[in-house]
Amino acid sequence: MNATEIRELFPILDQKIHDCPLVYLDSAASAQKPIQVIEAVKRYYEWDNANVHRGVHTLGMRATDAYEAARVAVARFIGASSEREIVFTRGATSSLNLVASSFARMVCSEGDEIVLSEMEHHSNLIPWQQAAKASGAVLKYIPLKSDGTFSIEDVEQTVTNRTKVVTVSHVSNVLGIANPVKQMADIAHKKGAVLVVDGAQSAPHLKVNVREMDCDFYAFSGHKMCAPTGIGVLYGRKALLEQMEPIEFGGEMIDRVGLQDASWKEAPWKFEGGTPIIAGAIGLSAAIRFLEQIGLDAIAEHDRQLTRYAEEQMKRMEHLTIYGPTEGRVGLVTFNMGQIHSHDVATVLDTYGVAIRAGHHCCQPLMNHFNVSSTARASFYLYNTREDVDRLLFALQKTKEYFRE
Amino acid sequence: MNATEIRELFPILDQKIHDCPLVYLDSAASAQKPIQVIEAVKRYYEWDNANVHRGVHTLGMRATDAYEAARVAVARFIGASSEREIVFTRGATSSLNLVASSFARMVCSEGDEIVLSEMEHHSNLIPWQQAAKASGAVLKYIPLKSDGTFSIEDVEQTVTNRTKVVTVSHVSNVLGIANPVKQMADIAHKKGAVLVVDGAQSAPHLKVNVREMDCDFYAFSGHKMCAPTGIGVLYGRKALLEQMEPIEFGGEMIDRVGLQDASWKEAPWKFEGGTPIIAGAIGLSAAIRFLEQIGLDAIAEHDRQLTRYAEEQMKRMEHLTIYGPTEGRVGLVTFNMGQIHSHDVATVLDTYGVAIRAGHHCCQPLMNHFNVSSTARASFYLYNTREDVDRLLFALQKTKEYFRE
Repeated sequence: MNATEIRELFPILDQKIHDCPLVYLDSAASAQKPIQVIEAVKRYYEWDNANVHRGVHTLGMRATDAYEAARVAVARFIGASSEREIVFTRGATSSLNLVASSFARMVCSEGDEIVLSEMEHHSNLIPWQQAAKASGAVLKYIPLKSDGTFSIEDVEQTVTNRTKVVTVSHVSNVLGIANPVKQMADIAHKKGAVLVVDGAQSAPHLKVNVREMDCDFYAFSGHKMCAPTGIGVLYGRKALLEQMEPIEFGGEMIDRVGLQDASWKEAPWKFEGGTPIIAGAIGLSAAIRFLEQIGLDAIAEHDRQLTRYAEEQMKRMEHLTIYGPTEGRVGLVTFNMGQIHSHDVATVLDTYGVAIRAGHHCCQPLMNHFNVSSTARASFYLYNTREDVDRLLFALQKTKEYFRE
Repeated sequence: MNATEIRELFPILDQKIHDCPLVYLDSAASAQKPIQVIEAVKRYYEWDNANVHRGVHTLGMRATDAYEAARVAVARFIGASSEREIVFTRGATSSLNLVASSFARMVCSEGDEIVLSEMEHHSNLIPWQQAAKASGAVLKYIPLKSDGTFSIEDVEQTVTNRTKVVTVSHVSNVLGIANPVKQMADIAHKKGAVLVVDGAQSAPHLKVNVREMDCDFYAFSGHKMCAPTGIGVLYGRKALLEQMEPIEFGGEMIDRVGLQDASWKEAPWKFEGGTPIIAGAIGLSAAIRFLEQIGLDAIAEHDRQLTRYAEEQMKRMEHLTIYGPTEGRVGLVTFNMGQIHSHDVATVLDTYGVAIRAGHHCCQPLMNHFNVSSTARASFYLYNTREDVDRLLFALQKTKEYFRE
């Protein structure tokens, strides 16, 4: 299947915006959903819906089977050793908060270090600020080069024997490049620290294998990889998840409950108090099946080629600044057009049917690094075509003309 | 619309289980979804899907409008003063955890008191155990009478000047009766405490008005009131929400982010870090529209009548014990049949197509109070009919015969 054929599986892409065909280039914020995923959610509600882990009736068992089968699918998708290493959460943000609230506060004491980069999304930055404040640990930033990336030497310099956690985005949501997570895992492990990877921008685009990556935690969201909103995953090594305390408490995560105290089920269920996001997990499972049918390697190659084509064409445009290094973009280009505010760029593009994102992309420290308050970002996914890029370029040209007048 | 007409709007109810028509009597665990809700979710993904609060493009604006309109619908549904008092969460469990983690730890010091009842669902019990441990507060239980209820006099006796939080389920998920929340709000407020109401079992069945109830927080789940799984609400008085710190940190809940520190948006958005549960909120909004079209008073009356009918018939059965008081059930009957384990009852009922729940219902302390380890529970909702109750009674009779042989 090529992107044009794939596109037909996404009903939303078949509409017009201001009389122009929709060109959706905001998948890094949230991806569109194929009919397979929409139908899986619908079918669940029309056929199997019930609470899980509770009922001994047929619907309850069907719902439980489907929910736990989704866990198995996720484990296979990211190469985990066991489905027991998969915690369902509300999204990557919740997953990262869980590690920072539970794991980091457990292992960090006064003067210990949490190492991260300045390119992190706020979701992988503020939870660590909070964990540092709560535990007395120190936040240490890996310094960035002028293009926004960091060197592995600087990681080595920053990580010390006091470091308990190293955390980084697998793929930056602004630079679009992949960080050297495997090497960072080695450095962290040598010092006795764990590596936490924010996979929000890598799970949709790259074939991920957490064992090869050798990370200790890996967090991602469903909605950026064709699954419903409100479902995410925290992968954690079994031995680590077992040591961690839950941070949400309620039904079905318990073993025994007395009036003054309670004990928990085993991981991962102890982290899933209350009725889980059942339809979300089932939708995620359908999204994984869909992506695997097309093939993650094919998706990665398509996204890279399209991004390279866009970048090459955009570089030819006057007064257009692209942020980040010149090589290795996984699926997005972040830019500014001279003095035109990125919101204005996005607004004019929208009148041509082209949807991009503008703003700080939840990366204020990285914006500060580039000395800008905001940027525009075009992001590409499996359903985008070269025609989409051409329409982006046409609309950018029109934007320039509009503001020149 | 009567229950038979309503039933036709629920595709799932039109199926057979073991060759018997499905009789779904487990709505207290999770309700079924009408086509209006299923279609609203589908339509969102097929037409409007994008991330909210981020994009200046058309889909982003449409998604944001729909998401924020859902907040307005929820505010009106429960009689809140403003949509700013509505926080979207993963479910009632998350809502209660948010109050216990953020508010209770803020207001409680060593020796302060958190007052609750022994009938609470684990979701409204364990978070308070944790808050008590973290703050040095004491958990104080309102004593239960033999029928599992408590008297308002005992509430008055239990609440003191050291009490900071009083918390209670509006409707018990085991007893099925409504607690005197308005009177409890008065008692709490006289002592300077707040009242937190677990509305998981009341929002689906009763016309709720948080201002008349005069509670300070009210938590409920979408999935028990015909909405998707994975969406819930925390109502909180604006002044209280404004004082509270968020417990999850990430994108879009922030004002400014520096390397060592960050500041938050205003409530309710500061509590909604990361991509929200957009389709869930839109599905909840559709569920509210559906329930309001039928009328909450009509639903309450229907559920009460059906429950009364079931209870009267079940009382005539030998060796069947019903738990709780004899009056005022809102939508469920909890029982045991002689020495037959509740799981066995539920399993045999399932072979007749009748879905009920068996177990401790996430209420181990209340089970201890009744000196049982588990009970069976039949719960009723707007789509259930007298024929459903008759089939329950028939299947219960068959269960008795089965175990007698």
